[in-house]
Amino acid sequence: MADKITPRSKDFSEWYLDIIQHAKLADYSPVKGCMVIRPNGYSIWEKMQRVLDRKFKETGHKNAYFPMFIPESFIHKEAQHVEGFSPELAIVTHAGGKKLEEPLVVRPTSETIINSMFAKWIQSYRDLPLLLNQWANVVRWEMRTRPFLRTTEFLWQEGHTCHETEKDAEEETLKMLEVYRDFAENYMAMPVFCGRKTDSEKFAGALRTYCIEALMQDGKALQAGTSHNLGQNFARAFGTEFQTRDGGRDFAWQTSWGVSTRLVGGLIMTHSDDKGLIVPPRLAPIHVVIVPIFKTPEEKDLVLSKAKLLADSLKAWPTQKAQLDGPISVHVDLDETKSPGWKFAEWEVQGVPLRVELGPKDIAKNQAVLARRDTGEKMFVPIPDVPGKCLDLLLEIQESLFRKAVEFRNQNITKVDSYEDFKKVLDEKGGFVNAHWDGSAETEKLIKEETKATIRCIPLDNPKEEGKCIRSGKPSAQRVLFARSY
Amino acid sequence: MADKITPRSKDFSEWYLDIIQHAKLADYSPVKGCMVIRPNGYSIWEKMQRVLDRKFKETGHKNAYFPMFIPESFIHKEAQHVEGFSPELAIVTHAGGKKLEEPLVVRPTSETIINSMFAKWIQSYRDLPLLLNQWANVVRWEMRTRPFLRTTEFLWQEGHTCHETEKDAEEETLKMLEVYRDFAENYMAMPVFCGRKTDSEKFAGALRTYCIEALMQDGKALQAGTSHNLGQNFARAFGTEFQTRDGGRDFAWQTSWGVSTRLVGGLIMTHSDDKGLIVPPRLAPIHVVIVPIFKTPEEKDLVLSKAKLLADSLKAWPTQKAQLDGPISVHVDLDETKSPGWKFAEWEVQGVPLRVELGPKDIAKNQAVLARRDTGEKMFVPIPDVPGKCLDLLLEIQESLFRKAVEFRNQNITKVDSYEDFKKVLDEKGGFVNAHWDGSAETEKLIKEETKATIRCIPLDNPKEEGKCIRSGKPSAQRVLFARSY
Repeated sequence: MADKITPRSKDFSEWYLDIIQHAKLADYSPVKGCMVIRPNGYSIWEKMQRVLDRKFKETGHKNAYFPMFIPESFIHKEAQHVEGFSPELAIVTHAGGKKLEEPLVVRPTSETIINSMFAKWIQSYRDLPLLLNQWANVVRWEMRTRPFLRTTEFLWQEGHTCHETEKDAEEETLKMLEVYRDFAENYMAMPVFCGRKTDSEKFAGALRTYCIEALMQDGKALQAGTSHNLGQNFARAFGTEFQTRDGGRDFAWQTSWGVSTRLVGGLIMTHSDDKGLIVPPRLAPIHVVIVPIFKTPEEKDLVLSKAKLLADSLKAWPTQKAQLDGPISVHVDLDETKSPGWKFAEWEVQGVPLRVELGPKDIAKNQAVLARRDTGEKMFVPIPDVPGKCLDLLLEIQESLFRKAVEFRNQNITKVDSYEDFKKVLDEKGGFVNAHWDGSAETEKLIKEETKATIRCIPLDNPKEEGKCIRSGKPSAQRVLFARSY
Repeated sequence: MADKITPRSKDFSEWYLDIIQHAKLADYSPVKGCMVIRPNGYSIWEKMQRVLDRKFKETGHKNAYFPMFIPESFIHKEAQHVEGFSPELAIVTHAGGKKLEEPLVVRPTSETIINSMFAKWIQSYRDLPLLLNQWANVVRWEMRTRPFLRTTEFLWQEGHTCHETEKDAEEETLKMLEVYRDFAENYMAMPVFCGRKTDSEKFAGALRTYCIEALMQDGKALQAGTSHNLGQNFARAFGTEFQTRDGGRDFAWQTSWGVSTRLVGGLIMTHSDDKGLIVPPRLAPIHVVIVPIFKTPEEKDLVLSKAKLLADSLKAWPTQKAQLDGPISVHVDLDETKSPGWKFAEWEVQGVPLRVELGPKDIAKNQAVLARRDTGEKMFVPIPDVPGKCLDLLLEIQESLFRKAVEFRNQNITKVDSYEDFKKVLDEKGGFVNAHWDGSAETEKLIKEETKATIRCIPLDNPKEEGKCIRSGKPSAQRVLFARSY
């Protein structure tokens, strides 16, 4: 299998698609722009969901479910929203054998339909804060699609909250951005910049959009999650009003925030190599695969019974929540139609962090061979030590993947002070380019048209620094992060 | 709150809608026939999902995700399928600002789109069995809707499997029916009959449909889950072919099976009473609510600190998986704008199985008051004994709800031998009517037209018994279960 994967150096884009096909993460569907998420891909998304869902609940949010269909008129109620989403809408015009009186939009995001309910549920400050989340599918009719990164239909979660004050909404927006950062870095082992989007790049209808931005191995940036302070824009459009503490009336201050199956694409492009997928242990559906090696029936009996015992002791090995977030997950590969060598390669393609090889000779020496997926390192370990060693290695792999990704990211941030250097870095090296910008949408647009680079974010802890805009030469108060992106 | 709930005896249908509104389980949405599932309702669905998902995985199934849009032509490939679903389809005709070349159907169920992928993935008997499940939303344009029981969009799981032989497919169909029965009876505390649907009632495209059928408190039956042996119908339509063990070619033998948010409706109508919702402990999002009672600030300090300690010891109380499937879940009601009496009623409306009342006088006696939601029984319990007693009571409530539902169901199965009695029982008593039927679709249709009763199922373990059809007088080999239904 592995030798069919296009090397990254040859064609990163082909490599990405090869990984998805060979690791059976997703497949093309008969519907343009829609993918099928296969069990190997879906099980990573399930692990992501479980962690995020717990974090949302720990921060006081509850799950709910709102209709997928939105009356077309709702989309038009918020001026920026309709402008942003109109070109991407899928529209149901007929149902139950009849033409609908009002066409229904398949949700591209749910601010509008949810606000129509918020307006009904919220009367007083006592009803606030209202903290909801929804796991759902959404549809945005995209011209150019790519599995996980940009598909017509995708899966995501969308948080929607209402608050008494602008300050409360801003705090919530930043709190959820921090949940995303923590998840990206400590589970996906994917370092991110937290920052604010420029007005041109913000969510259609938001006051301010914050984001986490990651860097892929080809030097392109990936927006991995967004958190929006919606101000009172949707509340005004839908009449989501409440009685304030001092007896007045005000519109609710709102936020929304989301991450999607795009994260699976980010995970692939952050860690994987030319042999196949690499999954950080904390999100790996299988942590350890045991490959039994035998020839004779006697060897088979011996090796399989030992493999089963080893699997049991791995599953029972105590782990802490802060380590793996659950027990060690083990698979014993019992397929007798494939050779051990074929299996080694196959499990490498699928990104299982650790492989245990177990044959009669190993058993005679009371040892097993452990192989790390990330480094390829192999080691002999006494069988009784295997579970403890596996846990140690899993934690080490998690840390090492993150460290490696941080190093790569840091090596690929370049400070430039001229437009020439800016373009040169983008073309020759890629990565984030840290440069002065005059703060105007016009300059931002010119730079995008001329270089295909956009401002990925203005980092949250951005130092103030006087300078001159690389494009306009006008005064600038700070550098921002540019990059070409997915 | 509670006194606004219409009593069951007055209007069962109004009672059901009142429970949903007052317990905040769901709300009407601006889109006809679609409901909003509120956090109280969604958290029950989440508990259901968690249990079912584990059972599916324990039986070897993996989750995947297939596109929600299906090319309209796919629906037409299986003759019975298109006939069954055409009247209910919602159709996307425009997307991305353009008219689509081929309209897309919003999935009413996914046999067709999934088979288009199966045909690609399955080459050989080595690829079988293929055991997949999907958690998804589906749309069926219904004329008459009712929250949870029948909505235009609903949430469900749909299992889709492929097998080498007809026998394997039949075994899978019945295995998953048994998973549903176990879940309905041991988690929902809702007794069900397992049986086969008649040809008129089977799934459009199936060879045979099996179902679990429950009885609601108003004497109407509810189809709570279905498991279909699809034979080779969809495999033939989509070319899902494989190389057999003996080198030949055959079409895959398939099954599909599903349960939906309808189960939440079944849960409500099986157990709840005129005071509000009753949730069986194994599916209750909150097991125990602690209501602190105090007047002075000193009392408040004392009671709240004691309540917090008690909550902690409840959460930490050891439970076994076979008991509650997780720790005891506790909520301390800290709202100071509401009186204890108001809270007692409110938590009864919301169906929390146990209430603990804790005031300064109780604490002086080192005791608390425990109140059961199902029977209303109150008891004084020494504080150190509260966690153990709560666990005991939760298990007792689970059992007692099931026993009560079984008794009700058994009292509402009536054997009749004449059409007159049949109609009389349906009108005066309701419930299941056990009667002879000649086995013809014509008679079945006549009975349905004349009495609104349908054959709910032919029970799996149905005894053979010679008799005469109640409607046609023709010979019959067995009795079947009739009922009016949701």
